[in-house]
Amino acid sequence: MSGVWGSNIKLSIFGESHGGAIGINISGLPVGKAIDEEEIYKEMQRRAPGRSNLATARKEEDRVEILSGVFNGKTTGAPLCGIIRNNDTRSKDYSKLKDVMRPSHSDYPASVKYKGFNDYRGGGHFSGRITAPLVFAGAIAKSILKEKGIKIGAHIKSIADIEDEEFNPIYIDSTVLDTLKEKDLPLIDDNKKALMEHRILSAKMEGDSVGGVIQCAITGVEVGVGDPFFDSLESTIAHLAFSVPAVKGIEFGKGFELSKLKGSEANDSYYYEGEKIATKTNNNGGILGGLTNGMPVLFNVAIKPTASIIKYQDTVDIDKKEDTKLQIEGRHDPCIVTRAVVVIEAIAALALLDLMEGEF
Amino acid sequence: MSGVWGSNIKLSIFGESHGGAIGINISGLPVGKAIDEEEIYKEMQRRAPGRSNLATARKEEDRVEILSGVFNGKTTGAPLCGIIRNNDTRSKDYSKLKDVMRPSHSDYPASVKYKGFNDYRGGGHFSGRITAPLVFAGAIAKSILKEKGIKIGAHIKSIADIEDEEFNPIYIDSTVLDTLKEKDLPLIDDNKKALMEHRILSAKMEGDSVGGVIQCAITGVEVGVGDPFFDSLESTIAHLAFSVPAVKGIEFGKGFELSKLKGSEANDSYYYEGEKIATKTNNNGGILGGLTNGMPVLFNVAIKPTASIIKYQDTVDIDKKEDTKLQIEGRHDPCIVTRAVVVIEAIAALALLDLMEGEF
Amino acid sequence: MSGVWGSNIKLSIFGESHGGAIGINISGLPVGKAIDEEEIYKEMQRRAPGRSNLATARKEEDRVEILSGVFNGKTTGAPLCGIIRNNDTRSKDYSKLKDVMRPSHSDYPASVKYKGFNDYRGGGHFSGRITAPLVFAGAIAKSILKEKGIKIGAHIKSIADIEDEEFNPIYIDSTVLDTLKEKDLPLIDDNKKALMEHRILSAKMEGDSVGGVIQCAITGVEVGVGDPFFDSLESTIAHLAFSVPAVKGIEFGKGFELSKLKGSEANDSYYYEGEKIATKTNNNGGILGGLTNGMPVLFNVAIKPTASIIKYQDTVDIDKKEDTKLQIEGRHDPCIVTRAVVVIEAIAALALLDLMEGEF
Amino acid sequence: MSGVWGSNIKLSIFGESHGGAIGINISGLPVGKAIDEEEIYKEMQRRAPGRSNLATARKEEDRVEILSGVFNGKTTGAPLCGIIRNNDTRSKDYSKLKDVMRPSHSDYPASVKYKGFNDYRGGGHFSGRITAPLVFAGAIAKSILKEKGIKIGAHIKSIADIEDEEFNPIYIDSTVLDTLKEKDLPLIDDNKKALMEHRILSAKMEGDSVGGVIQCAITGVEVGVGDPFFDSLESTIAHLAFSVPAVKGIEFGKGFELSKLKGSEANDSYYYEGEKIATKTNNNGGILGGLTNGMPVLFNVAIKPTASIIKYQDTVDIDKKEDTKLQIEGRHDPCIVTRAVVVIEAIAALALLDLMEGEF
Repeated sequence: MSGVWGSNIKLSIFGESHGGAIGINISGLPVGKAIDEEEIYKEMQRRAPGRSNLATARKEEDRVEILSGVFNGKTTGAPLCGIIRNNDTRSKDYSKLKDVMRPSHSDYPASVKYKGFNDYRGGGHFSGRITAPLVFAGAIAKSILKEKGIKIGAHIKSIADIEDEEFNPIYIDSTVLDTLKEKDLPLIDDNKKALMEHRILSAKMEGDSVGGVIQCAITGVEVGVGDPFFDSLESTIAHLAFSVPAVKGIEFGKGFELSKLKGSEANDSYYYEGEKIATKTNNNGGILGGLTNGMPVLFNVAIKPTASIIKYQDTVDIDKKEDTKLQIEGRHDPCIVTRAVVVIEAIAALALLDLMEGEF
Repeated sequence: MSGVWGSNIKLSIFGESHGGAIGINISGLPVGKAIDEEEIYKEMQRRAPGRSNLATARKEEDRVEILSGVFNGKTTGAPLCGIIRNNDTRSKDYSKLKDVMRPSHSDYPASVKYKGFNDYRGGGHFSGRITAPLVFAGAIAKSILKEKGIKIGAHIKSIADIEDEEFNPIYIDSTVLDTLKEKDLPLIDDNKKALMEHRILSAKMEGDSVGGVIQCAITGVEVGVGDPFFDSLESTIAHLAFSVPAVKGIEFGKGFELSKLKGSEANDSYYYEGEKIATKTNNNGGILGGLTNGMPVLFNVAIKPTASIIKYQDTVDIDKKEDTKLQIEGRHDPCIVTRAVVVIEAIAALALLDLMEGEF
Repeated sequence: MSGVWGSNIKLSIFGESHGGAIGINISGLPVGKAIDEEEIYKEMQRRAPGRSNLATARKEEDRVEILSGVFNGKTTGAPLCGIIRNNDTRSKDYSKLKDVMRPSHSDYPASVKYKGFNDYRGGGHFSGRITAPLVFAGAIAKSILKEKGIKIGAHIKSIADIEDEEFNPIYIDSTVLDTLKEKDLPLIDDNKKALMEHRILSAKMEGDSVGGVIQCAITGVEVGVGDPFFDSLESTIAHLAFSVPAVKGIEFGKGFELSKLKGSEANDSYYYEGEKIATKTNNNGGILGGLTNGMPVLFNVAIKPTASIIKYQDTVDIDKKEDTKLQIEGRHDPCIVTRAVVVIEAIAALALLDLMEGEF
Repeated sequence: MSGVWGSNIKLSIFGESHGGAIGINISGLPVGKAIDEEEIYKEMQRRAPGRSNLATARKEEDRVEILSGVFNGKTTGAPLCGIIRNNDTRSKDYSKLKDVMRPSHSDYPASVKYKGFNDYRGGGHFSGRITAPLVFAGAIAKSILKEKGIKIGAHIKSIADIEDEEFNPIYIDSTVLDTLKEKDLPLIDDNKKALMEHRILSAKMEGDSVGGVIQCAITGVEVGVGDPFFDSLESTIAHLAFSVPAVKGIEFGKGFELSKLKGSEANDSYYYEGEKIATKTNNNGGILGGLTNGMPVLFNVAIKPTASIIKYQDTVDIDKKEDTKLQIEGRHDPCIVTRAVVVIEAIAALALLDLMEGEF
């Protein structure tokens, strides 16, 4: 497996859902940056399980222990490793899943690739739980980026067919982003909250699940961030986004909709706003030629419905080599989208920090 | 700039639209593989300009000169470098574009990032022309993958609002893929050809442009290709896809549509098809947990309408620091989608070869 | 800092001498390999401090806690992270070393590079203690390599001017390598033991230190390991060797002595030994053109005398900006060579595993 | 093969001794740097063959054609690719070397590793000729480093047993380095010139060859260059040095000799030289903890005698599977050291530029 990512900062991730601990080693961080453990904890809580009836009942405090790289509360320049102990593991729930493949999970291809040696309990290294260290790293990245006035925030663009408003592509007030972080259902239009909760809980009651789309914004980023040909900002964000389990699509700016417009409709015209060059529209989501153009960076990520559902499903038993039926037990999220919002923010922050690292 | 990509094979790309030559150095290819220069030439012609009234009038033969890495017609294991001379360059067309920024192009952010030293002629290193070396590398990758029964093919899923049929997600006959390569408008449903051509030519007559979506399929790939956590097959393909100019979105399987389904609708049930495990549906596009599951790999790529249009556009002059209007001259594609089909196939082949390299 | 190394396996190291823990995350290990914690512990003890009067009195059990990547005693293919808690830290010993630079240590350049934010206690991330995780990773690498009959062993070639015998360059019995591991002073000629011990203890009594040379051998490696142009086996081993603090030189085969020979003396003639091709001499240390040639791989590493000595030294106080004198307190090794033997074996094993990874 | 090297700048090398062209693609160069083609040509001539009776009679002009990355005489930030055509190839000289392995060359291990598909003519990709692109890249790196007052120069420390003087480790006047570049035998003590020439020509007359040691100095480098744990300056230079064919050893500062000293003799004491911190000795070669300390960086590289000699040698025929005798024909250097001086300077410049890239 390739647990390492990054060019300037390097992330090295580890852990399994039901192992001793999960964690991440971050190499290449700028020196002398304050590490605010309470701020990190708040970010971790945005992803942590067990906080509401919209999410899995598994309880994990997800307090990160920092083992290295911080001295007197500041980054030293040496690799910063943080670990999170797994506490509330009920591995017995998973014992029968060694041979019976859960549909839409990694179980079957992982079993083939790793010749049956993979830790299948709770999906092992493929578990969504492995995104917790990403949130930790993302919290550090965000606090470093904030120094330069860069803010990152995301909201639930949709759950199933229920749509939130979108960010204003031209101008996003930073208080909008701050406010979203405080909400348990981060929406621009809070009127949609009840509807979305109802959709999630209905699915839960049916033993089913729903998916959604997350829209993420980055504001305050200067012109020229990105490293083409191969490390465009879009490539960098997309690479990390597709490491997050359940992500099945990404688009920048108007994305797929852009493919239906004419050039004269799609192109973002420039004008001088005082000394500053701005665009009148932002269909390209703040990225041209793989480089930021000074407008808000905007992208959408599609999250599939949680694969683990209680409803009976057709599947196979690879030991008996026969078709079978499966009812997944254990504790699962009826909708992963709410907890994934902070993960998507984290990957945006990490992508940006990697490309901008020399500037801190 | 980061002109290098890959873990096992390593691509190192170079060149500008109006420089001496463009090319690519490919390191890490398996040894003893036949290099069929005519097959490569055929692939290059699928992307080459100047072949029809649907594309730019710039004429480039795009014949690749292989400088190294091949001996007696076979790969030696040493790096294989191919170069393509630029012939039909009319750099004067671009002289006024040094200061007047073309909307939706890299001109403005590149000028800031590279402090005005970038080669602005024809977009320089940001030109779509730089995808020609990718097609060359992709042609080699495809011929190596073919050894293991892997085939890659793509079609135009849509131009503007005109939709082709989609691939059958469960089973794609390899003759379908072969046939697509022979078509100048690669469609599953050829009845849409006249409509699409008309849409492109209408835009051209208006001095405008259109975009579209390309759907790509990979068949015959074994179970378990991908290298999570960070180098999932989706991450690897997406990373390369967003290096291709004009790509603004990517989705795997049903992608964004998947976010609207319930788990019970989205999950792909398993069953035994004789000895082989298959899924009844393929909403996940053949990839689970970042690994192939043995079903056809399917993904869609959104291409924005060509940014270069003849219609007047509002923009800025960064030398005079004032707003201005721009009418882009030169020879441009009214729709880049047709020529991009083989580029998307190429990046799929390269992503796959990189992840599978040890097996050849 | 760049805490990540490797192409196929990827090491990500972390920790400071006086921080919470040191450790390493190893990504890309082959799957299904048995992890023998007792064997690992034995290897760790070969490097651990506090075992004799030849080494520092700091006592660390150096028991590794494996957090991930192992399930039912076997590697899972997921990243394997091991951590070692720091126990016997006396950080107060180091308080005055914030400003007074220890000669021949990283203190001064690190303080400049990391702007004073580096953890200076015990050298922080620059401490020789950070080689403990390398030994852990090396122990795993060795046990994997053993599967293919590859053995790695090293001995003390010299301490100061006292020389051990050298390995027979043509044939090294594997029992020789096994026996060395059991010795507290790993020598081929045990008659030199008393002399060497005396030299080390004399230096200790004078408040001084000595250095030496370690010779390392790899046997049983097949022909063709190495990945030129840039990742020759020599480059790969040397890269890792110079990560080890106190290493100041490396040579393969006869190395520097080879520069004094004529081609007719230096060249290793081939002959058929039955079916197998062998060389009559092995001046090149088993590596030609960066690739193994089937003969034992042999290299020497020069270790400088421990920089920390009790004797008064001239140095500077960077806070007061004046010259000063320094007497280093704390617990230090009069000679690091003895404990470094297993570290050099470890880097040889890791270099080899990285280059051979696809074969396991 | 791994033809790619570097973290911040990335080198991608290609070519064979008797192929169409050799070259290098350099990615990540700073922008706006003047490219002086005549300066490059002068550097190339220091390595080029056919210039004197001390070197091979093969004549190659080694004029580099720059294909990309330069616009109006300055670097654009896009990858810079330079190629060198092979002209004076006499491939027939090598026809019998397909099966008869030249001792101390890569022939045999390369034939095994690449299954006989490698281009064996003149050593193919393993030829010393592949260092020409390194010299090209090095010339560019040097001119960029010069901006910050960094100078790099090397001399022949020894040929066989004839020794030149060494650099003054404490202070090296930059005119010393400039003067060395003009000499055909770059020596500090020109009185040794006649002796060394005689030693080389004697070997040539005997159909034999000699080796030597090159000492390289870097002056004017600031404190703190290096990226530990794994990318120390020593690791970075050593990695590249062992890519150069015929290099068998490297040592920094006093290197192996240091292993014989006591700590009190070896340690470099600090003092204030005005505002600046300096060391009284420079046994560590300007590098501590993998970081520069502001003193001249000094290292020695051992070059083995040219493997190709005319004298009869015992070897094997791998086609007939029998022992045989070989007399190597063709045109060869009786001593590669003279031409390697500029190669060693090049790798020093490239290592430094890679580690310092963000500063330009």
